[in-house]
Amino acid sequence: MKGEKSIAGFSKLSKRGKLKWIVENFFKDPELVMHELKSYWLPDEQQKILDGFSENTITNFHLPFGVAPNFLINGKTYCVPMVIEESSVVAAASSAAKYWQSRGGFQAEVIDTIKVGQIHFWYQGDASQLQLQMPKIKQVLVEKVRDLCLAMEKRGGGVVDIELKSLAPQIPNGHQLFVTFRTADSMGANFINTVLEKMAIEFVRFCQEDEALRKAEVEILMSILSNHTPECRVRVEVSCPVDSLSAPGQDLSNAAFAHRLYTAVQIALEDPFRAATHNKGIFNGIDAVVLATGNDFRAVEAAGHTYAARDGQYRSLSYCSIEDDQFRFGLEIPLALGTVGGLTNLHPMARRSLEMLENPNAEELAAITAAVGLAQNFAALRSLVTVGIQQGHMKMHLSNILQRLEATEKEIAQALLYFRDKAVSQQAVREYLRLVRSPQT
Amino acid sequence: MKGEKSIAGFSKLSKRGKLKWIVENFFKDPELVMHELKSYWLPDEQQKILDGFSENTITNFHLPFGVAPNFLINGKTYCVPMVIEESSVVAAASSAAKYWQSRGGFQAEVIDTIKVGQIHFWYQGDASQLQLQMPKIKQVLVEKVRDLCLAMEKRGGGVVDIELKSLAPQIPNGHQLFVTFRTADSMGANFINTVLEKMAIEFVRFCQEDEALRKAEVEILMSILSNHTPECRVRVEVSCPVDSLSAPGQDLSNAAFAHRLYTAVQIALEDPFRAATHNKGIFNGIDAVVLATGNDFRAVEAAGHTYAARDGQYRSLSYCSIEDDQFRFGLEIPLALGTVGGLTNLHPMARRSLEMLENPNAEELAAITAAVGLAQNFAALRSLVTVGIQQGHMKMHLSNILQRLEATEKEIAQALLYFRDKAVSQQAVREYLRLVRSPQT
Repeated sequence: MKGEKSIAGFSKLSKRGKLKWIVENFFKDPELVMHELKSYWLPDEQQKILDGFSENTITNFHLPFGVAPNFLINGKTYCVPMVIEESSVVAAASSAAKYWQSRGGFQAEVIDTIKVGQIHFWYQGDASQLQLQMPKIKQVLVEKVRDLCLAMEKRGGGVVDIELKSLAPQIPNGHQLFVTFRTADSMGANFINTVLEKMAIEFVRFCQEDEALRKAEVEILMSILSNHTPECRVRVEVSCPVDSLSAPGQDLSNAAFAHRLYTAVQIALEDPFRAATHNKGIFNGIDAVVLATGNDFRAVEAAGHTYAARDGQYRSLSYCSIEDDQFRFGLEIPLALGTVGGLTNLHPMARRSLEMLENPNAEELAAITAAVGLAQNFAALRSLVTVGIQQGHMKMHLSNILQRLEATEKEIAQALLYFRDKAVSQQAVREYLRLVRSPQT
Repeated sequence: MKGEKSIAGFSKLSKRGKLKWIVENFFKDPELVMHELKSYWLPDEQQKILDGFSENTITNFHLPFGVAPNFLINGKTYCVPMVIEESSVVAAASSAAKYWQSRGGFQAEVIDTIKVGQIHFWYQGDASQLQLQMPKIKQVLVEKVRDLCLAMEKRGGGVVDIELKSLAPQIPNGHQLFVTFRTADSMGANFINTVLEKMAIEFVRFCQEDEALRKAEVEILMSILSNHTPECRVRVEVSCPVDSLSAPGQDLSNAAFAHRLYTAVQIALEDPFRAATHNKGIFNGIDAVVLATGNDFRAVEAAGHTYAARDGQYRSLSYCSIEDDQFRFGLEIPLALGTVGGLTNLHPMARRSLEMLENPNAEELAAITAAVGLAQNFAALRSLVTVGIQQGHMKMHLSNILQRLEATEKEIAQALLYFRDKAVSQQAVREYLRLVRSPQT
């Protein structure tokens, strides 16, 4: 290693130049690492597309692409693509899908698809004057962005409304134009940001030319979409008679199983420590579909968690009820997804994912994604309130430890048996291997 | 397409069997898709490792792996691996790293590394009796999990404390053992869950044998770690005299630039609609490092967003101050990361990522990751409050549209020039191409 840790003009280097600098300065065996990183490259044409998504790329990171079949959603059966590096997630989704397939499946409904943008500005004058002019402002701004909206309007989207909101006194003289949109089958971030930046320019012009407003100074701070989209939301539910809610194992009545599930959800509604992990499980499923379809999981996470905190406390996104012997389990979550635009049609595997889902529109994709989130939540709670989360996890964990300790196939098979009723830890497995490997005395 | 959408025993099929069923039932051109999906496979040895991470895997999903050099953190310079599919993120991180490298770099500090686990149970008796017995319960439970903790204790971790908390009356007779841990350089999920499940069994046994407690029934509901880890937190800051805070472009004084950045952060503290996107930008940077190092981004997102909502309103995770002409910009965020265990040493590229960072321990990795989050936030705000977010984004967006419309290299170069001062939309680019491609008349 040369040990040159700083560099000027890195982004201007060719891909090979970048790679060379990296391996020579940060790795003990530059040639070996160079060879390895190159081995992950795709053929030129495809690699160029991938490199176009980001910057300073030197290779690719592989995530396992799995599928969860048998998802019956609104009467249609899907095989859902999932990209995730965590064990048990795809297995859990598949298992829950199968469970509910024989109990009527998932009922999903898109409640609305309103997206949000904000133009933040300072207005050094009487805000009530601004409020008075809002009908006029709205009319002018909508007119001025008409060109930008033409294509979107043809697809059924466009600007929905513009409201004035004040952030004073916390932000002295701080206000915002709160703009709502629909963006049809695209996630719409670029469309919204483009429209907002144009509106901002036209808003200043309007204020400068308007009789009543031009006395006070108006200054734009920033214009950008919001990922908090409580009105771009989908609801998905499963339900069945408590009698049909068969529990895993033999020790638990269906009614007791239902009550345990119900209580687990109530705890996640009341306790933020539990809610965080409860919702994390939901996102295990959701993000896997989001990634597979070329959508943006950071946007989806931000929307979901902000929504989970909407009433002043961070709470479960799913809910549960038992009424008249009917078990009902549901999830309401904001999902601003796209099936056109962005990476959805550019990433070769995202395109295949959408094809596997029979090319859904954005609302169908939101319904599918939410159903996987609910399935994931159901499977996690089912394990948690019965056999415990570790039974399944530990088998996987044990395999990973054994692999790391370079156990043979025979040793692995024996260890899986041995640890069936014992606690798995790195220490315990190492000790176990030491014993079985030591010469019999 | 055969159109068989449901299947029994799918998980029992071989990988090839799964792939075959998928392509035959969900794709128009099974052979082509089969060939394509197989083309993403790694060599057998590596592929087996990847397939071990998840279930029902049929291929791999590629994400671009980029690097952001010149990150000066606590006096040491890093080149940070980032895995992300969103454009501008790596470029923004690199640019902010460079900017702060010449202004003293990032100062990061791990505040604490406390992890949390919960054992939820019903106790049908007088909870004050339970509370009275807690010192004894704590002593017994810690003793009973000693074996499981041996290896972790050698590495400096283990059980920290056990508290009794009540969820009554919302959850009738609902209580929890709130258990805190340190887990050294591992994220610790499996360790925590294993210890909790063992503790739960021993807790019931204790209650059944204890004079004062055995009169009432105790029933475990579930035992699992919490991803809400407010005490596993890192703080990272940059600061410089306002005089040195040079703004991009020429129209803005350094003081005005500082004030605009400051106000943007204040808005994100006050307005959840802004906070969601503000924090989303932070996670763009953080998740890219989390993915690259084989950590779990759903866990990190859940922890961060729950923390953002801790005071009853969802707020910015970063903060900003201008005092005595000193600009200070910081981020406090929970980050429960590992540098051993899980995928960190199993995924071939995660291992290389950690090597590129010179094999940091978990605290160093948390510091690096938080610094990238802050850098990302700085770069996003710098664009937002000056040229606007779209200028950079749009160039990328334009390239993507042109690529999709199969523009030639010459057309792309011309279009980039033409659209420099115009709004980019699918419609506008299509129209532009139609014009330049039509025969001159």
